Amino acid sequence: MKLETLKDLYVEELKDLYSAENQILKALPQMAKAAASPELRAGFEEHFSQTKEHVSRLEQIFESLGKSPRGKHCKGMEGVLEEGKELLKEDAEPEVLDAGLIAAAQHVEHYEIAGYGVCRTYAKLLGEDRAATLLQTTLNEEETTDRKLTKLAETSINVEAL
Amino acid sequence: MKLETLKDLYVEELKDLYSAENQILKALPQMAKAAASPELRAGFEEHFSQTKEHVSRLEQIFESLGKSPRGKHCKGMEGVLEEGKELLKEDAEPEVLDAGLIAAAQHVEHYEIAGYGVCRTYAKLLGEDRAATLLQTTLNEEETTDRKLTKLAETSINVEAL
Repeated sequence: MKLETLKDLYVEELKDLYSAENQILKALPQMAKAAASPELRAGFEEHFSQTKEHVSRLEQIFESLGKSPRGKHCKGMEGVLEEGKELLKEDAEPEVLDAGLIAAAQHVEHYEIAGYGVCRTYAKLLGEDRAATLLQTTLNEEETTDRKLTKLAETSINVEAL
Repeated sequence: MKLETLKDLYVEELKDLYSAENQILKALPQMAKAAASPELRAGFEEHFSQTKEHVSRLEQIFESLGKSPRGKHCKGMEGVLEEGKELLKEDAEPEVLDAGLIAAAQHVEHYEIAGYGVCRTYAKLLGEDRAATLLQTTLNEEETTDRKLTKLAETSINVEAL
C-alpha cells in the first residue's frame, strides 16, 4: 500500500477500525459469558448489538468510497483482546474477574475512541461530510459506553471486588 | 497469579502499565527519528522525558506497596506499537507519514488513558491516596498530550498531508 495522500491513510485507518470491530464482535460473547454480574453481562450484550451497527456504518462509508473494507488485520486490537483472554484464564474470584473485565473493556473502548477520533478528523478535512457524521455518531456511542463502564465499576463492581 | 481481591487486580494493572511505559520508552526515539515535522519530532522528544517521569511514579507506587513492578508483558501495548512499526515500513510521503505517526501516538495515549483511569479508580477505593494522586497526575499529562496531538494534526500536519 502506497500512502501518497491523507485519503490513502484515511482508508487504511478505516480498515483498521473495521478489523478491530469484527474482532470485538467475536470477543464480546465470551466476555458476556464470563461476567458474574447480570448488569455487566447485559452491558456486554447491549454493546454487541451496538458493535454490529458500528460495522454496518463502516460498510456504508466503504461503499461510498468504492473500496473494500477488508485486507487489514488490526494488531492493536488483537493485543488488547489478548489481555482480556489472559484474564479469563486467571484463577480469579468472580467479583474480581468482573472488575478485570470492565478494565479490559475500557482498554477496548479507548482503542476505538482513538481510531474513530482520527478518522472523523480526516473525514471532515477531506470534505466527506456524511462519513464524518457516521464516525462521530459511533465515537459518541463508544464514549458513552466507556462512561457507563466507569459508573458500573465505581458504584458496584469494584466495591464488591474489595 | 491468584486474583482474590481488588488489590491483586490493582497490582496486575499497575504491572501492565509499567510494561507499557517501558515499551513506549523504546518506541518513542524511533517515532521522533521518523517524523519529518520539527514540531512533531519535538513533541515526541518532550513526551519521552515525560514518560521517564511516569515510569518513576509507578516505581514509587510499587515501592510503597512492597512489590516488584516486573513480571508482566503488556501485550496490548505490544500490539498497538506493532501497528506503528508497520506504518514506518510503508511507502509513504513524509507529510502522510507524520499524520500516521500522530494517529499511532494517539492510540498509544488512549491505551494509557484507559490504564491510568482504571488504576486511579482502584487506588482511591483502596484508600491508597498518595498513589491515586500520582496516577491522576500522569493521567492528566496523557490527556494533555492527546489533546496537543489533535491540535497539531488539525492545524498543520493533516492539512499538509492532504
